[in-house]
Amino acid sequence: MQYFPPALERLVEQFNKLPGIGSKTAQRLAFFVLSLPEEDAAAFAQAILDAKSSIACCPICQNLTEGDGPCAICRSPKRDAATVCVVADPKDVIAMERSREYGGLYHVLHGVISPMNHVGPDDLHIKSLVERVGSGGVQEVIMATNPDTEGEATAMYLSRLLKPFSVKVTRLAYGIPVGSHLEFADDATLMRALEGRREM
Amino acid sequence: MQYFPPALERLVEQFNKLPGIGSKTAQRLAFFVLSLPEEDAAAFAQAILDAKSSIACCPICQNLTEGDGPCAICRSPKRDAATVCVVADPKDVIAMERSREYGGLYHVLHGVISPMNHVGPDDLHIKSLVERVGSGGVQEVIMATNPDTEGEATAMYLSRLLKPFSVKVTRLAYGIPVGSHLEFADDATLMRALEGRREM
Repeated sequence: MQYFPPALERLVEQFNKLPGIGSKTAQRLAFFVLSLPEEDAAAFAQAILDAKSSIACCPICQNLTEGDGPCAICRSPKRDAATVCVVADPKDVIAMERSREYGGLYHVLHGVISPMNHVGPDDLHIKSLVERVGSGGVQEVIMATNPDTEGEATAMYLSRLLKPFSVKVTRLAYGIPVGSHLEFADDATLMRALEGRREM
Repeated sequence: MQYFPPALERLVEQFNKLPGIGSKTAQRLAFFVLSLPEEDAAAFAQAILDAKSSIACCPICQNLTEGDGPCAICRSPKRDAATVCVVADPKDVIAMERSREYGGLYHVLHGVISPMNHVGPDDLHIKSLVERVGSGGVQEVIMATNPDTEGEATAMYLSRLLKPFSVKVTRLAYGIPVGSHLEFADDATLMRALEGRREM
């Protein structure tokens, strides 16, 4: 039975397709869009179309960028081109940039190796990383994939793949997070923190 | 500092404007839209534009409808035109329709009287309700606003407004919800349930 006008029903369906948005929330969002002024709703629709049409992957680091050329980070003369940080996801680049500590370049894999989800090395941007390192100029590759099983396995796989090239391959340090409590740290983390202890 | 390409940033901002969507969720939704096939993203944008352009209020009951004429419920010859159920919101029409019990027509106020939020009687579709009842043919008006202070006050205001017309004004029954437990019922609800007790 149809309760909404078809056009509203279609909008609710579209919102319902978004991850984490159930049918009740989808209804609420659709009603909100209906209540927007005409130009705001048009701006929303346009933003979707613009994002889809103008955003592409940087040909060097595979991070998201606007237009055809390399991204702002790859183009920047201030960044250290000898260091490449390998991350799984464009969101991880943002996390790294937020720390304001890292001054090198990135390489975005767009996923991790995950046999369970049928993601193999060929589904990721691994070939372009190997070519990038192989073409010279890179001195250090920092593995910054997530510290979970799949992230670990991917980092391990890549470090073996990069072994033939005379390049230093490092991994982000494991340890207790700043501001946390020792009592809540899990065994594996504590073990790694102990292993990685440094002189003060 | 700009972390995302501008087009992506704009899409995140648009999602962030939606009610209940914070910046993290907005990012997740924007990335999801980016991952959609071109035609699905276009369908999403089109659904927003269509909903805005084609949905209007029914000239009779003020419920949402597509096109200019009266809505499907007002047009239906199967519905009892002598009974009008007054609700605050189009969503409430859907709740009533779901019960499959009600066979009359509706009148959607699009809000309730709320001095706190600067909503007075003139901001709601009250004048059209009075005209509708005044033009004859309506025998019963059922107040189905929410059972909270503002809903109550609005129902009270309307019933007084409709008093001059020879029309029966009723209110949905209060009582314990079906399937609930007596021990969890609040005092006010129990009192109303007792007041409204019926012979078995």
